[in-house]
Amino acid sequence: MDFLGKRYLFTPGPVPVSPRVLLTQAQPITHHRLPEFSEILREIREGLKYLFQTKEEVYFFASSGTGAMEAAIVNLFSPGDKVIVVEAGKFGERWRELAETYRLHPVVISLDWGRAVKPEMVEEVLRLNPDAKAILIQACETSTGVKHPVEEIAKLLRDKETLLVVDAITALGVYPLPMDEWGLDVVIAGSQKGLSLPPGLSFVAFSQKAKKVSQSATLPRYYFNLQKEAKAYQKDTTAYTPAVSLLLGLREMLRRIRELGLDFLHRHSEALSLACREAVLALGLELFPEIPSQSLTVIKAPSGLNTGEFLRHLRDRWGIVFAGGQDQLKGRIIRITHMGDQTAFDLMIAISSLELGLKLFGVDVPLGAGVKRVEEVIFDYLKER
Amino acid sequence: MDFLGKRYLFTPGPVPVSPRVLLTQAQPITHHRLPEFSEILREIREGLKYLFQTKEEVYFFASSGTGAMEAAIVNLFSPGDKVIVVEAGKFGERWRELAETYRLHPVVISLDWGRAVKPEMVEEVLRLNPDAKAILIQACETSTGVKHPVEEIAKLLRDKETLLVVDAITALGVYPLPMDEWGLDVVIAGSQKGLSLPPGLSFVAFSQKAKKVSQSATLPRYYFNLQKEAKAYQKDTTAYTPAVSLLLGLREMLRRIRELGLDFLHRHSEALSLACREAVLALGLELFPEIPSQSLTVIKAPSGLNTGEFLRHLRDRWGIVFAGGQDQLKGRIIRITHMGDQTAFDLMIAISSLELGLKLFGVDVPLGAGVKRVEEVIFDYLKER
Repeated sequence: MDFLGKRYLFTPGPVPVSPRVLLTQAQPITHHRLPEFSEILREIREGLKYLFQTKEEVYFFASSGTGAMEAAIVNLFSPGDKVIVVEAGKFGERWRELAETYRLHPVVISLDWGRAVKPEMVEEVLRLNPDAKAILIQACETSTGVKHPVEEIAKLLRDKETLLVVDAITALGVYPLPMDEWGLDVVIAGSQKGLSLPPGLSFVAFSQKAKKVSQSATLPRYYFNLQKEAKAYQKDTTAYTPAVSLLLGLREMLRRIRELGLDFLHRHSEALSLACREAVLALGLELFPEIPSQSLTVIKAPSGLNTGEFLRHLRDRWGIVFAGGQDQLKGRIIRITHMGDQTAFDLMIAISSLELGLKLFGVDVPLGAGVKRVEEVIFDYLKER
Repeated sequence: MDFLGKRYLFTPGPVPVSPRVLLTQAQPITHHRLPEFSEILREIREGLKYLFQTKEEVYFFASSGTGAMEAAIVNLFSPGDKVIVVEAGKFGERWRELAETYRLHPVVISLDWGRAVKPEMVEEVLRLNPDAKAILIQACETSTGVKHPVEEIAKLLRDKETLLVVDAITALGVYPLPMDEWGLDVVIAGSQKGLSLPPGLSFVAFSQKAKKVSQSATLPRYYFNLQKEAKAYQKDTTAYTPAVSLLLGLREMLRRIRELGLDFLHRHSEALSLACREAVLALGLELFPEIPSQSLTVIKAPSGLNTGEFLRHLRDRWGIVFAGGQDQLKGRIIRITHMGDQTAFDLMIAISSLELGLKLFGVDVPLGAGVKRVEEVIFDYLKER
């Protein structure tokens, strides 16, 4: 914030937000029941359908992404319902905890953190549990940087009753995840990740199949009640007070997303993540995830590095904010996001601070090798711009 | 501004401003005659004395830097007064134009743009013109990136009546220029350069010797009347309506400057400019100025490069804003500033975009050599942070 006290945010949520969105949100507060706000809501709903690539309504809440995960659970299930949970990190764990909290019957596919689930594993568990109401999965497991094979898993469910519930909080807007085309039943997003907005909004969309299931769900729900929201939507309003300022920012962002196009956003993340991974390898470091997501790059901490001290030094002295590992990965990984208002040039800052920081902490890295590799990779991308 | 439409400003004024200053300036407008505003003015005046390293009052105007240059002229001179002008670029030319406009008698030390004046040249011209009322000079000639030897010239004037009038618009806050210690008679600054603020404010301080000369000056002056300002200062106010929002930003910035200390700021610019010059050389390019200033790095355009097209491409496609040359230097140089709210990491963006841009435009540069060199130079600086 301060002069020469700049912060460079490379955390996988919150992410840097564009000045235009921030200024839009700084407008005087309006009231959500005024007629002009209905117009805003209509525009947002259309923009969200474009982003989710769906004909269904996308509902939003003033909540963190976890709120929308909970909304999916309470609107779909009844106590005792069997659900298959892919648990390969912190957010898979969250699916399991939600299932347990609401007394569902979770069948957990538990993988080492850093692994990606294989479609065959899911197929096998499905075969043994044909009565499973749903599969709960992350498109991108943010805690490990892993991308799960959502498209392939969706294919397994084509002619089955089992629903596919996808936490796409760090995937939507980053790489392709067309809801209707792939037949995803529930897609969940959050504002401060793939959507490049401040935290505070979550999103959830239900397929027709999910809506049907939802009608017989008996779990208690009040705030996260999608039927109530659906009714309000018909009157171009919301059930409860919406986060007015955040929605103005969302409208601005959705306009920009349509202007740029989803293909552009996907190519952008693809170029940045590829350049980052290549730079990491050029520095002689190793990638952590089995199948890396384009949303963030997760690096194995070099042996002997005190990761906590390293990350604190970069943050407090140089203003560079990377993320470390959570829970069992604490001290073992470094996470750098490619989400948010970042260009290829910002990646130069991430990689140069990584190089300089590692050198300062006694890790033998070839200074300059990473940033050179970034340049080589992004040159092809930039020359098309 | 837009998402993925980020701008990276490397022009030698305006320069990037810290978010804290921008937010400070976004406060509701206050009135400049309210009692609390007097308190703000008193604090600003003390802060400016620290920055200028002087016991004298520093006056400010709502104007560009040129306004303060004009203020110096009209408050010091009478028609026909002889002044020695060091003209080695666009801003030396401005001194001459001001002198001509006010019908002074300028004796011009004219140098090729890119050259720095030598103290011996000034000594010789002084010997031939002992009746010169003043020497008008730039501390840093922004159009060429040259640093003139102000300290040495001040020494020549120690026991003389001739005043030294220093345009320090791109020098103050960047490198040492202690007004009282060096015996500078007039020091001029602008907000959007060395001070790292938005454009709109200019500053001028007079030594006791300059104040005495000022008393017999007969040039017409109304807005830029320092005696009027001095009287207003005694009542803790200003002669005319001050730029209220900009002054709130100035107060914030002056606080931060005292917090960091001038030494820190000077070391910072020294490190960034050294790293940039070294990177330029590592790319096989040439520096333009004879004696380079720490305020900006000026690069000779590689032969065959269409500089205008190159700068437009970087600006319009990649969001990187460098400056080209003015007037006779148009198409011949590229200017990159080190002023403003920039850290060593921002320099990585400047140099990588320079490398990538030159390569795209067919100039044979060793991709990665510049950024590597930046890292090597800033490593020593960063490890002290």
